[in-house]
Amino acid sequence: MPCPSPIVAAAVGTPRVAEASALAGGGTLVVPKRKSAMATVAVARVAPRGRLSLIGLGPGARDLLVPRAAAELRRAGVVIGLDQYVDQIRDLLRPGTQILASGLGAEEERARVAVEQARRGHAVALVGSGDAGVYAMASPALELAGDDIDVVGVPGVTAALAAASLLGAPLGHDHVVLSLSDLHTPWDVIERRILAAADSDLVVAFYNPRSRTRDWQLRSAMDILARHRPAATPVGVVRAASRPRQRVTLTTLGEFRPGTADMVSVVIVGCSATRVVAGRMITPRGYRWLRT
Amino acid sequence: MPCPSPIVAAAVGTPRVAEASALAGGGTLVVPKRKSAMATVAVARVAPRGRLSLIGLGPGARDLLVPRAAAELRRAGVVIGLDQYVDQIRDLLRPGTQILASGLGAEEERARVAVEQARRGHAVALVGSGDAGVYAMASPALELAGDDIDVVGVPGVTAALAAASLLGAPLGHDHVVLSLSDLHTPWDVIERRILAAADSDLVVAFYNPRSRTRDWQLRSAMDILARHRPAATPVGVVRAASRPRQRVTLTTLGEFRPGTADMVSVVIVGCSATRVVAGRMITPRGYRWLRT
Repeated sequence: MPCPSPIVAAAVGTPRVAEASALAGGGTLVVPKRKSAMATVAVARVAPRGRLSLIGLGPGARDLLVPRAAAELRRAGVVIGLDQYVDQIRDLLRPGTQILASGLGAEEERARVAVEQARRGHAVALVGSGDAGVYAMASPALELAGDDIDVVGVPGVTAALAAASLLGAPLGHDHVVLSLSDLHTPWDVIERRILAAADSDLVVAFYNPRSRTRDWQLRSAMDILARHRPAATPVGVVRAASRPRQRVTLTTLGEFRPGTADMVSVVIVGCSATRVVAGRMITPRGYRWLRT
Repeated sequence: MPCPSPIVAAAVGTPRVAEASALAGGGTLVVPKRKSAMATVAVARVAPRGRLSLIGLGPGARDLLVPRAAAELRRAGVVIGLDQYVDQIRDLLRPGTQILASGLGAEEERARVAVEQARRGHAVALVGSGDAGVYAMASPALELAGDDIDVVGVPGVTAALAAASLLGAPLGHDHVVLSLSDLHTPWDVIERRILAAADSDLVVAFYNPRSRTRDWQLRSAMDILARHRPAATPVGVVRAASRPRQRVTLTTLGEFRPGTADMVSVVIVGCSATRVVAGRMITPRGYRWLRT
């Protein structure tokens, strides 16, 4: 029955059934509609539902990358990330995987491209170091993603956990994770959090402690903690944990020098329970254990 | 020259060279000393330096166990851990690996046995879930370990990171990790930390939120936060992340019911910047981004 047909329209509510049905799934017409006296045919290609994997590559060493991340990378048709991170896992990708790495300076831009590619039906892997959900790409990407794509978060070992494992067990009990970067957060918010940590005797792990342009924040943060904690409080600085130029420094709040830390360092400051045993920085699991 | 000899004693400071040398490395004599007119021979077996690996098995799924942990497990001669964790990785062990799992109720006891076995020269793997350094076995073991054994910490994906990846990206910015177990920490210390987090607008991840015997702490903690944050603040509860009986609940501070959480749950409470987009809980990376 030729379309548009008033009989068809009366029966199903629209005069154009074939084309409308083919396009209903959000696809695009592959060949123009063909019609005869008996039938009308329309062929559309429906885009597959896109998949966005948010993948943290861990602190750096290949043997600290979780197998689920490697599997998601093999599955990906498009990989997005900074050159240094893509280089780290290039050998895990299938031949033909599209890599959108360099030339994308800003995080917002990488997040936007990742979501856009997933919306087109691709399996997209958005990669970064550590865990994708901690000071990383998952937040900006998920702010843009709707429910029209599948999202898979693959958790990873953070820089703080890798640093802690090299120092001993400084994060053995309650702790706070703070970024000292005031590029996106006003310093007074950061300062209030350091004060709260100092006041409630929490172990603190500082991310982004110091860069060439941000050179006073770490000193200022340590000064706040030093007003609440003894000079002998253990402090650990781990640079580039699990990477080739890793450096582990164990010092105290009194002897700490900001120069030991840079942008790829994590600084961990102990609480009143933290101590050093045989060169290892340890925060016991509970306060009552300390008294026994 | 027979020992003891006054000539030997004058030259090297001790009359018994052979036996003393053999025992100097901390070994034990294998055969009694043999001597003739020309020479004295003593043979000792020196114990190898012990190795203690502190291994977090991740949240549960095998593909979230880092390869370094699997390698350390294959290397181990002795494995120590609760039955449920040892069962999880039994297939990764070499045949003949000694398993000291059941019958060791207390953590202190497992830590003590692990260090003792390492001191005897064994390669010991002390296993637990998540990361060994966060509310786990690394702290108690390292409090007992000296510098006479090698210690290797293998970082792992924590329950908080696994929970966050299922909820979206609630730990995208500064956050505090708190245990609500007052078995080892007095409640007033815990309460002070919750207040500090509430006051400084930190995202909070609660471990050990609730058990059969500890049934009021979670309600109390949420009440403190509710006095500082709007009722619409997003709250995520993840039970048994990445395990077969995983359950993910997204709610709000106003509608939260403690009954959704148990001992194997992590409860994550958002800060003022946390929001829900397309069913995913997100804490943006920086406060300034919120305003754009």
